[in-house]
Amino acid sequence: NMSIKEVASNRSFGGWQKVYQHESEECKCTMRFGFFPPQAEIKKCPALYYLSGLTCTEQNVVTKGGTQGPAAKNGIVVITPDTSPRGCNIEGENDSYDFGSGAGFYVNATEDKWKTNYRMFAYVTKELPQVIRANFGDKVDGDKMSIFGHSMGGHGALVCALKEPGKYKSVSAFAPITNPIQCPWGQKALKGYLGDNIEDHKEYDSCELVKKYKGPVLDILIDQGTNDEFLKRELFPDHFQTACADAGVKLNLRLQEGYDHSYYFMSSFMEDHINHHAKYLNA
Amino acid sequence: NMSIKEVASNRSFGGWQKVYQHESEECKCTMRFGFFPPQAEIKKCPALYYLSGLTCTEQNVVTKGGTQGPAAKNGIVVITPDTSPRGCNIEGENDSYDFGSGAGFYVNATEDKWKTNYRMFAYVTKELPQVIRANFGDKVDGDKMSIFGHSMGGHGALVCALKEPGKYKSVSAFAPITNPIQCPWGQKALKGYLGDNIEDHKEYDSCELVKKYKGPVLDILIDQGTNDEFLKRELFPDHFQTACADAGVKLNLRLQEGYDHSYYFMSSFMEDHINHHAKYLNA
Repeated sequence: NMSIKEVASNRSFGGWQKVYQHESEECKCTMRFGFFPPQAEIKKCPALYYLSGLTCTEQNVVTKGGTQGPAAKNGIVVITPDTSPRGCNIEGENDSYDFGSGAGFYVNATEDKWKTNYRMFAYVTKELPQVIRANFGDKVDGDKMSIFGHSMGGHGALVCALKEPGKYKSVSAFAPITNPIQCPWGQKALKGYLGDNIEDHKEYDSCELVKKYKGPVLDILIDQGTNDEFLKRELFPDHFQTACADAGVKLNLRLQEGYDHSYYFMSSFMEDHINHHAKYLNA
Repeated sequence: NMSIKEVASNRSFGGWQKVYQHESEECKCTMRFGFFPPQAEIKKCPALYYLSGLTCTEQNVVTKGGTQGPAAKNGIVVITPDTSPRGCNIEGENDSYDFGSGAGFYVNATEDKWKTNYRMFAYVTKELPQVIRANFGDKVDGDKMSIFGHSMGGHGALVCALKEPGKYKSVSAFAPITNPIQCPWGQKALKGYLGDNIEDHKEYDSCELVKKYKGPVLDILIDQGTNDEFLKRELFPDHFQTACADAGVKLNLRLQEGYDHSYYFMSSFMEDHINHHAKYLNA
């Protein structure tokens, strides 16, 4: 079932900021996503997926991310999924800000309690692009996709690009969780969704995945604020920098002086990131 | 008492998005305002005041307006006051979305119940600039001010510029209430704050004020979405266009096809408006 329903539509920067909902096969629940076609008139554009961080829905980046202006300038469709399944009536799904609702961590869960719904990796990399193709074949060039995200969504973007070589033309992240097997947020989520086997956790850890990456050349852009309160406890961009250097993967890690973990940080560098993706999507 | 207290500080677009609070003499309560110095290092910049619409606090434009990028490019400080006094324990102050809290309408109230606190005109045009001068004399050029706003705040900006000739170098508005004596929002507010005398209401009506404007040449920019649900009932830009033409005041009224009354509309044209003010502030 590829049908979608429009739940919001606002003219924005010469295009339209839309929100749709649909019944997800992967997540077995209603899922929402933001969709920004950069022109009012139909024209086929490449698609840039944006993955949000902990506690967010599709709304946060839509209202506060500042994606629309730079996307309109570059003629890129921006697609912003929610961060997890919702309303699945799983015991404890709403108990934590960092696990369950709002915290899908972009994995395919294998633990019994979560495995029916929490399939955000499959949702983001397979189902949502199919839904887009089925509904917007006239507006979106299904062969040209890139991906980026913030915090948990930065982790998600890196993992999607590293696990699906060639699927995305480019990848970038704002303050990503780069080494979830070594940080409290990641350990809690990976254990909860995947069980106790560390080898399974490594399948969703960018530092581990980059070691064995064998795909088209990647040119990764990461921005990280130096005043980010989660930098030393959760994010570890230095681990990823070392892993990329060892693997011979090109990483441009920019430390942004005085910036924190907020949307003020992320929106400040949104144009740089969209320009980075445009280089590859519009090549 | 000119002292202020910082309540938030986030690095943004090379500057800092700050929020301060202070005890207002005019409003006899604690007031908050957003303050965006466009450079991290101290440098004296002109100031652009932004007045928000019904139901907003200082937060809405700070998170959703997209002011910071264009302000940083132009070297302009953006100052975003709240829309009303708050927590004054006036009977009924929180009963309506369009009167009382969140709906000060930028007037100096004369009705007994409201006159002690609801002095937003004096607050915006006199007290707040004094507070800025006292606290940021090193960052803000007190002699260079402009003003703009959205909806009720567009009304406020036009009224401030028309009632205080020469105080503001430029004025602009997004979807302003231009003729409050003729629309339901305006009639309710002006009657509530000022009493029954229509002559008093005219003192806060842009269409009336522009008739008797005798100040430096104004070059007014207004953007108005054609799909704005309040256009025909509350805003009447055509009335203001006629009034400006009759008075020989230059107005650039741009009808923006398909745009609504939201922050999606307003943020889409934020850069144009800040560039408009920069022409005069940086002249």
